[in-house]
Amino acid sequence: MASSSSVPMRERMTEYVIGLQDAIVAGLEALDPNGPKFKRDRWERTEGGFGISTVFAVPPEPEHFASSAGGPSTTPTSVIERAGVNISVIHGNLPPAGVKQMRVEHASLPYDPNSETTLPFFAAGISLIVHPRNPHAPTVHANYRYFEITARKDSETPGKVLAWWFGGGSDLTPSYFYEKDAVHFHRTIKDACDAHGSKLYSSFKPWCDEYFYLPHRGEARGIGGLFFDDFCADVHKRIPAAEGETSERPWTQEAIFAFVRAAGDAFLPSYIPVLQCRIHTPYTPSQRRWQLVRRGRYVEFNLVYDRGTKFGLMTPGARIESILVSLPETVRWEYMTDMGADPESDEGKLLAVLKKAREWV
Amino acid sequence: MASSSSVPMRERMTEYVIGLQDAIVAGLEALDPNGPKFKRDRWERTEGGFGISTVFAVPPEPEHFASSAGGPSTTPTSVIERAGVNISVIHGNLPPAGVKQMRVEHASLPYDPNSETTLPFFAAGISLIVHPRNPHAPTVHANYRYFEITARKDSETPGKVLAWWFGGGSDLTPSYFYEKDAVHFHRTIKDACDAHGSKLYSSFKPWCDEYFYLPHRGEARGIGGLFFDDFCADVHKRIPAAEGETSERPWTQEAIFAFVRAAGDAFLPSYIPVLQCRIHTPYTPSQRRWQLVRRGRYVEFNLVYDRGTKFGLMTPGARIESILVSLPETVRWEYMTDMGADPESDEGKLLAVLKKAREWV
Repeated sequence: MASSSSVPMRERMTEYVIGLQDAIVAGLEALDPNGPKFKRDRWERTEGGFGISTVFAVPPEPEHFASSAGGPSTTPTSVIERAGVNISVIHGNLPPAGVKQMRVEHASLPYDPNSETTLPFFAAGISLIVHPRNPHAPTVHANYRYFEITARKDSETPGKVLAWWFGGGSDLTPSYFYEKDAVHFHRTIKDACDAHGSKLYSSFKPWCDEYFYLPHRGEARGIGGLFFDDFCADVHKRIPAAEGETSERPWTQEAIFAFVRAAGDAFLPSYIPVLQCRIHTPYTPSQRRWQLVRRGRYVEFNLVYDRGTKFGLMTPGARIESILVSLPETVRWEYMTDMGADPESDEGKLLAVLKKAREWV
Repeated sequence: MASSSSVPMRERMTEYVIGLQDAIVAGLEALDPNGPKFKRDRWERTEGGFGISTVFAVPPEPEHFASSAGGPSTTPTSVIERAGVNISVIHGNLPPAGVKQMRVEHASLPYDPNSETTLPFFAAGISLIVHPRNPHAPTVHANYRYFEITARKDSETPGKVLAWWFGGGSDLTPSYFYEKDAVHFHRTIKDACDAHGSKLYSSFKPWCDEYFYLPHRGEARGIGGLFFDDFCADVHKRIPAAEGETSERPWTQEAIFAFVRAAGDAFLPSYIPVLQCRIHTPYTPSQRRWQLVRRGRYVEFNLVYDRGTKFGLMTPGARIESILVSLPETVRWEYMTDMGADPESDEGKLLAVLKKAREWV
């Protein structure tokens, strides 16, 4: 890994996400050495850039299909049911409407609201979702990205970086609640954050709780984790840190990149031990049914609320299959389901956890 | 049925949708006389009004669950997998933001854009979706509604109807394409329309094709049907009829209500013969798999694009279970599915039909 700050950040982030993708795919494949491997697709974007999608999907043989769609736990199956670990490194021109919309979220964006100009952008990121088959093993999502706006070719300083920021996070979505898993996940993430500033976890953990919330269900998607956006060298509205106080948060591009790498590197240690602990737990058809119902909520969040998914679906030329690989393979909706109605049941206990954000560490 | 025009339209529409709900539930239950019955829930809305949800859902016994989630065709199962036939009769006050948004779609709405007043509204409607179990039998959706805005209590004419309109339609979503079914469905709807004006079907059929379209997939949700909104006594931007020419479209509330009833009454004859023809067709696990993948598209449309669903999810106090009963019971997403890739396959033939709107009658 290049560490010299003389190399442009776009190249360093590209190199980082490519390496992280390889490491995460290897870590997930190692869980099931004799199982199917991830499928790797490299795609080119006509408007500029490329992506590498690595996807785990069960080969759709009829007999496999029948069992994967709700069969009993005695059927031998893969550890993972659906996973996507994708990177994309793209560039192009933001149209005026896109610039205007982005300005709302990113205060550092140089922008004259009356201007009808486009602005060159660059984005490099990794985005991943893992849906394990065992209902006791939680779904996980993580995403780390770097965004840059540069001066137009017809400007006095073509290509000059006018604004940049990092965004990302990671969150866990169990179907059955194990406090030990939630604590391990948050502890691992918090330790990664704390090494780069005392205000990072305490700022980004509640942001995650706010973001991954389904108002129409009155419940969180899962037990949270980390969420941040618009992280640059400026004062950040979500981080109550004294300006320039490096013990509270990083203030330079170099230091923020180091934090992002620490968070990305924490993904495997935050999640793999949880999977190893849960993937061999026996489960019943009823528990599988509950998992499929919970996945319905996951789909509701991603299609109704998730900004990344919505932005992707509306983007002309977007690679739809890479965006919607986040959706689980098999999903179930029940009308007025009775599962979870009993607060003493394992299903009811999960619902109680999702109703109110908690501190885990 | 009251037919006297001295009875307020809100009462007549309420009576109509209650009767239509009963007729449709009876018609669907008659398909499977020994099968489970629809479950009926009446709910009251705190803010004003009530609804009756009638829902068909397979009792979630573990063994039933396992088979319904993708089992072989030899498993005995119900004809319908999931259906909801719901009515709602609600009233309340539209907040200023709601009035403003509604004004965009409904030109007849009396509204001063600078006003911060709320407006009393009334809405009565029926909304239904049927997802049969057999992949050869198409999913259907229909919806008919009447909307009224009345003068505020503190006005000179409290309760006076300031604006009213009807909206609705019906559309068919097959997993396997049978031209005969598409023609029967459209022919039945067109006949119902034609008795009330020569420009109705030709105006509302293309509107349906436009509305039920997934831009991110570049395909229609199904083979279309009828879609209309904002239908009142004024000139309508979507109906190219000479003003007052009653052979082309109805121009009075009475005559428009007669058209809406004709369209609603056409639902059973448009759909039941198609079901009767397809529900006994043998099917393979692979065909079931394709049906579940197609249902994923249905979910994508309803959660990403459908205005009624989005409006419902954002409405405080909305009955979420009645809104999301439109979603299928079991759904599947495949990454880069190979199904449908061969244009000569039955799956590929459906995709070709969905790529380009056609005239059916």
